[in-house]
Formats: sequence, C-alpha cells, structure tokens
Amino acid sequence: MARPWAAFGVDLHLEPAGTSGLRRGLTDALRDAARTGRLAPGTRLPSSRSLAADLGIARNTVAEAYADLVAEGWLTARQGSGTRVADRAVPAPSAPEPAPRRREPGAPVHSLIPGSPDLAAFPRTEWLKAARRALATAPFQALGYGDPRGTRELRTALAGYLARARGVRADPGSIVITAGFSHALRILGTMLRARGVRTVAVESYGLDDHRALLRAAGLTTPALPYDRLGTDTGALTGQGAVLLTPAHQFPMGVPLHPDRRTAVVDWARRTGALVLEDDYDGEFRYDRQPVGALQGLAPDRVVHLGTTSKSLAPGLRLGWMVVPSPLLDEAVAAKGRIDTCGVLDQLTLAEFITSGAYDRHVRSARLRYRRRRDALTAAVADRAPEIRVSGIAAGLHVLLGLPPGTESSVIQAAAWQGLALQGLSAHRHEQAVAEPLDALVVGYGTPPDSAWAATLEALCRVLP
Amino acid sequence: MARPWAAFGVDLHLEPAGTSGLRRGLTDALRDAARTGRLAPGTRLPSSRSLAADLGIARNTVAEAYADLVAEGWLTARQGSGTRVADRAVPAPSAPEPAPRRREPGAPVHSLIPGSPDLAAFPRTEWLKAARRALATAPFQALGYGDPRGTRELRTALAGYLARARGVRADPGSIVITAGFSHALRILGTMLRARGVRTVAVESYGLDDHRALLRAAGLTTPALPYDRLGTDTGALTGQGAVLLTPAHQFPMGVPLHPDRRTAVVDWARRTGALVLEDDYDGEFRYDRQPVGALQGLAPDRVVHLGTTSKSLAPGLRLGWMVVPSPLLDEAVAAKGRIDTCGVLDQLTLAEFITSGAYDRHVRSARLRYRRRRDALTAAVADRAPEIRVSGIAAGLHVLLGLPPGTESSVIQAAAWQGLALQGLSAHRHEQAVAEPLDALVVGYGTPPDSAWAATLEALCRVLP
Repeated sequence: MARPWAAFGVDLHLEPAGTSGLRRGLTDALRDAARTGRLAPGTRLPSSRSLAADLGIARNTVAEAYADLVAEGWLTARQGSGTRVADRAVPAPSAPEPAPRRREPGAPVHSLIPGSPDLAAFPRTEWLKAARRALATAPFQALGYGDPRGTRELRTALAGYLARARGVRADPGSIVITAGFSHALRILGTMLRARGVRTVAVESYGLDDHRALLRAAGLTTPALPYDRLGTDTGALTGQGAVLLTPAHQFPMGVPLHPDRRTAVVDWARRTGALVLEDDYDGEFRYDRQPVGALQGLAPDRVVHLGTTSKSLAPGLRLGWMVVPSPLLDEAVAAKGRIDTCGVLDQLTLAEFITSGAYDRHVRSARLRYRRRRDALTAAVADRAPEIRVSGIAAGLHVLLGLPPGTESSVIQAAAWQGLALQGLSAHRHEQAVAEPLDALVVGYGTPPDSAWAATLEALCRVLP
Repeated sequence: MARPWAAFGVDLHLEPAGTSGLRRGLTDALRDAARTGRLAPGTRLPSSRSLAADLGIARNTVAEAYADLVAEGWLTARQGSGTRVADRAVPAPSAPEPAPRRREPGAPVHSLIPGSPDLAAFPRTEWLKAARRALATAPFQALGYGDPRGTRELRTALAGYLARARGVRADPGSIVITAGFSHALRILGTMLRARGVRTVAVESYGLDDHRALLRAAGLTTPALPYDRLGTDTGALTGQGAVLLTPAHQFPMGVPLHPDRRTAVVDWARRTGALVLEDDYDGEFRYDRQPVGALQGLAPDRVVHLGTTSKSLAPGLRLGWMVVPSPLLDEAVAAKGRIDTCGVLDQLTLAEFITSGAYDRHVRSARLRYRRRRDALTAAVADRAPEIRVSGIAAGLHVLLGLPPGTESSVIQAAAWQGLALQGLSAHRHEQAVAEPLDALVVGYGTPPDSAWAATLEALCRVLP
C-alpha cells in the first residue's frame, strides 16, 4: 500500500497486506496493532470517513473493518465517543516451546530401555500400501463418527488373527479398539470402579504406570507374591480383578506356571472376578510356539488385551480388548459414545492384517530379534560369564542378574558411558512380596539395526 | 530344533495334547480349531514343512495329520492353493455382529442431520500424498510413545494456522492435541473438577452430548439465558467456567454479540474463571471474514478448542486445544502421560497444513457449501415462503423456523419419506432459559454431492 496510516493522533505505521483484499488487510493490520499493544487501549481511531480519505479507499471498507473488529471485541463503538481500542490488558504470550536440550556429557547415545520395538524397522512402505488400499475401498460413510467399539473392519480382522495366532476366542462384536494398552486399562479401571470393584491385584513386578492408571480410577493395587515358580495366583482372595502378563511376565520374562494358570481361572469362576490379561508381546516367542492366551480357557472371565506397540510401533496408538459379552455395554460406556481412535489407521491395520502383511512383518521381526537375543546371550556368556541371563524364550527383553547391591551403580556407570539402562527395581511393586533381586531389564528390541552392535558392546563394557 | 518360526506362511497357535501321540494330538487340535470356528473357513494353513519346523516335529507327522483331516472333511487340499479350512457352517459365535438391518419402510435414504461435513468430499488423494511425505521424512524416533501433548510437528503447524486464520494467540508449547472435541472436553472436565470447579455454565441451546461429558466429570451444567441478542453472558456469576460457541452459536447460527464477548472476558478476568471456546466450524463463513477467536482477546482465560471433524472428517479423530500456560501441566496430567492420538495421522495433518493443502481444501469446501446454502435458501423462499431461514452466514447448517407446535410432526413426516431431520428441541437444555421455538436444524453439509439435489427436494416436500 502506497500511503502509511496518517491522521491517527498517534504515530503509527501500519502495513495492511495487500494480497488478501483491502478490507481483510486493513482488519488484520488493525487487529494486530491492538493485540500487540501498538495501539494502546482507549486510543480513539479516526472516523471511517477520514481514514477512508487518508487511505484513498471506500468509506464502506473502513466501516466494515471497524465493524468486524467491534464484533471480535478489539474495538468499541459508542454513540458520541467514536471508535476506540477496547480497554483490556494484553498479557504476554504463554511459555514458548523449550529448545531441545544440548547433549550433556554422558547423555545417552545408545538405549536398551525396554518397552519399545526397533522403530527403524517399522514397515513404512507396506503400511502406506495398506493405507492406500484401505482408503481406496472404504465407503465415505466410514469417515464419520462411527461405532464406539471401533471399525467393523478392524474388529473382524482381529477376531480372525487373535483366534488363529493366540488361541483367543473372540467375535468381532466383543472386541473394543483402544488407543493402546494404557487407554484400555483406563477404560477397564473406570468400568471396574463403576461395578463396585475396589481392589485389583497386580504382580510384584510390573509397570508402575499401569498401577498408577488403576489407582487414578480409585482402585487399590495390592501385590501378589512372586516366588521361584513366578507370580502366585493361589494367593488371590476377595479382590475384584487381577492384572497379569501370563504369556510372558513383565519384566521377569517367564510364562505363568501351568498350575497357576488353572488357579487364576478357577478363582475367577468361583468368585466372579475378572482377569485382565496383558498380552503385550505374545507374538514374539523364539524356541517354540507362543504360550496360548489365557482367555481361551475362560472367555467369560478374562479380558484379553493386546497392542501394536510391540509388534509395529507405539506411535500408532492402536490396541484392543476382547471383552466378555455381558460386560461389553459397560466397557463401551466407559470408553465413551464417540470412538477415540482414528478411522484411517484402523482401516489400514485391518487391511495390513487381512492382506498377510502383519504376519510377514511379525515373522521377519521375530527372526531379527531372535538373532539379537542369541548375540546378546553369547556375548554375556563370553564377556561376563558370572551373569545369569533369564527370560530368554520370548519377548523383546531379557533379565541380567547382577551381584547383590550393584544394580544402581551399573546403571550409573552405563549412563556415564552414554548407554541408557533400566534396573529391575524400577519395576518392583512398593509392597512387593518377593526376594529383592539386583538385575537389569535389557530391552534388546529398542536400538535400530545400525546401532545394535555398538549398543551390545557398550553393554558388555559396563557389566561387572 | 533346526528352524525357529520361519518367515513364511501364517502364524498358527496350536496346543497338541501330548499324551495320545504326536500325530493324534495335532489332528485333534486342528480339528477342534476348525470345529469351534477358531480357524475360520477358508483360512490357509502353513505348509507341512513350515508347521513341522514351528512345532519341532517331523514333516511327515504334519502331512499325515493334514491328510486325516482332509479325509474327514475339515480341511481341503488343492494343488496350488495349499491346505485350507473347509468351507462349512461353523457354530455361531457368542454375540454375532448384528447383520445390517433391512431397510424398513421410511428408513432414511437422505440425511440432513447436522454435525457432519460432506464425507464423500474427503480429500483422499491429497491426504495420502501428505501421509507419504510425512512418513518419508519422519525420523524413526517419531514412532515411539512421544510427547503427551501430541507431536511437535502438528503443534507447530497449528500454532501458525490458528494465528493466521482464526486470530488465536498460540505457541506450539501450549497446544494439546486431542482425539476430537469430545476428548478435549473430557480432559477439561477432569481438569476443572480436579481444580475444585463444581459448575460449568452452558448455553440454553447446545449439544446434549457435551453437557453429558461435563456431568460425567462430576460438574453441574446450568443454562445461560438465550434472548434476541443470543446467549447472555451477562448472567454469569460464580460458575468456574463457561462453555460457548462464540463464532457461530450451535445450533442457532449467530455469532456471540460483541457486548457479550466483552462481558464474558471481563467476567473471566474478574472471577478467575475459564472460558471454553468451542470453535467447531470457524473456517466456514460465507459473507465476510470469519469472526476471530475469542481466545485472541484473553489468551490467559480462554481455552480455544478446534477440530478437523467439520473441516475434514470426524473419523480422523483429531482436534486440539490451546491452553493458558499456567494450566498446561494440569491439562496434560488429565490427558494422561501417554499420547492417545496416533502419530501417523498427526504427522500427516501437520504436512497437510504446512503444504497448503488444508487451506486449499477449506476454500474449495467453503465454495461448495456456500452454493448449497444459496440453493437451500432460494428453494425455501420459493417453495415455503412462510418459513424463516436464519443462521445462514456461516457453518454447515441453518435454522428453519416452523409454525408453533409443528416441529415433531414435520420430522415424523420426513422420516416416513426417507429423510432424516433434526429438530431444535433436540438441542434445548432441559432448563433452557429461552422462548420455546419450533425449528429444524438443517445440516446441509451432510449429504454427498450426488444426493444433494434429491435431498433438498425431499426437504421442500415436507416443509409446511
């Protein structure tokens, strides 16, 4: 615009952007000036006639811009006192995004923190292909609010997959899609509390985050004993539910003992309690077939929970629960009437499973993780033969037993050498009924292939 | 065992009972899986070689078990298509997916229910392009659990977009990504309740689902008066927060009156209360610039809430809130420590916005909806000249005033003719402080283009 703003009574230079139309540019410039405080509250603006003359534009354009800003609350117009900048304080904008921190000496270069698969191996090309096929065939109605349980396509694909690969007895109608395991546990916490449950037993070893989610729902989470046979489900009494990792105890890495599988099912049948089966990495077993899902033994008493966080990537935020039919309505009510999981990812995962890409991905991942596990156990046997490696049959982590009292110093030493490690004590229930044990929970799935050898070497260097 | 789970075929979970011989046990297990439907008809079984390797038994044993079951009719073996579960009736699973209902006489063919954009116009090709670009450039770490606020990429893209298009004062650090508006309202309900707030004022007209979400968080939701100037924010007193649709009242279709914009901000400043600004369709204004966001006036007291449900599709389940910085930690705590929104969709939307595809889509949608609105108002003026059309300046719906006492009969008549309509009474607060009014809330964004003309004609036929 050729002419600066004159005749304001204040010395102010405005530059209405010319591209988006006179009125829009004028409105934007005035709003900006008011917002930043360049036009002080109470400032009287020129009459529309005089400003229009100054700017060489139609009076109506100015009047409309003023009206817009009055409507938005930036200006006030009073008969007899003209148009003024509204009288209100303008606070400073909120806290800016913190800048990424500089690398500190000893900040981790490598990580063996458990809980993540190798994210660099996410099958991007295959996933995009599945997304394209899914979007090409989905009817437009699929993009609406949809079924609160999740899309029919994904529930159908999962029912087939879980029956085939995990021995789960599921039909599509009793599956609820969730934004990962945490979301499912939140829903179940709400549902159990609404049913009058007060107590959910948990394992002596497990994720603190999971206990916290249950406690946030108003539930207490006492610990079950853990002995040389693993979690002792025989100790269950009047609790309303129990949270277990039957196929692969996290973090100890063993399957639930057969007697104790039977015991927990009998307990649930006898007392009407519910078993929450966290099947977080059931796909990964190396030496023989995976342990079948507990749910297959008692579909009426077990909620089977699964996720793509270990088989694909946590960032997908896709999980599922297979809910006993009588509880389905309550679970859906606790989830909310509107599905909280994106339809496009759900349709893509359904296509990914039914096309066979999921099986192919899991099988190839299983081979790669098995090789890592073999390299890890061989390296430890070679370099630190005193250390006992356990929980090797399945999953993406192993337990390395340490001499008593050394856990935190090993972790500290690793941190100084740029390797992030996690100790068993991080996963110990505050009232654990178990022998204290010093150990590392080594998530060998975490590094990308390119960093694996160096990460393993870094681990061997810090082992006592 | 020579080979672990080989990387071909499908995963199959079997538990052969060991006591009665390998072949017998395997045969029984497979038969049982087929009989109970756990292996669906048509499921392709692994080759005998691969299953033998998986189970660590002789290939011949598997081949013989397969042959037995083919002989019994449970399996079929075809040259070139492998061994599959035979195609036969399987006992119905416990709670089958309800079959799509037959069309009843009068079941809707056309819909003008508000709340949805034209889903057939979802930009599938552009979206997939953005997904491909986003996945091609994302570092693998982006696929992990991530920031509980949502991805930095999307928060940065939104901060720029909201400032430019809606006059919102936002920085990426104070934006929280949500699974749509409902999820955001749930989070805010939890947060407000945790702050000790008991009461959130709502409008006399609005969505019952929203009030229900607040009530589920333990809040009461009294109604603000609604008069000829719209919602009266001057009536706010000691409530801890208010939920408003300032840019475009839903369902009445008017912007919040300038005096009342000022009043609500002054009230929030004076009492320390919070304004929840539901900016559900702020992108769509036809006659002049959109009314700017209320948040721009008081970023310290207003939570600005937006969504892609009207601009793209509800099935994306992507929304956002701009939170005053002092409340950010509480909002994140109420959302949960793990992000509940899929990373891939977030990265795709960020790319969609920064590439300009979002603006292009919104502009072209605006033109199409404007044409529909013009056609609708012209048709009503021509065919039912007694009916007053209001709320036409913006959004995806208009209000058609009806003669007193006729609302439900018009909706009923429409239903019989296959047209789904919604009345204003569906959106009236149970304690509304407002003149009762008979009207239709006509969501002209809902039908696909192909059905628009017929839908409009169907509407005209049922108008009194």
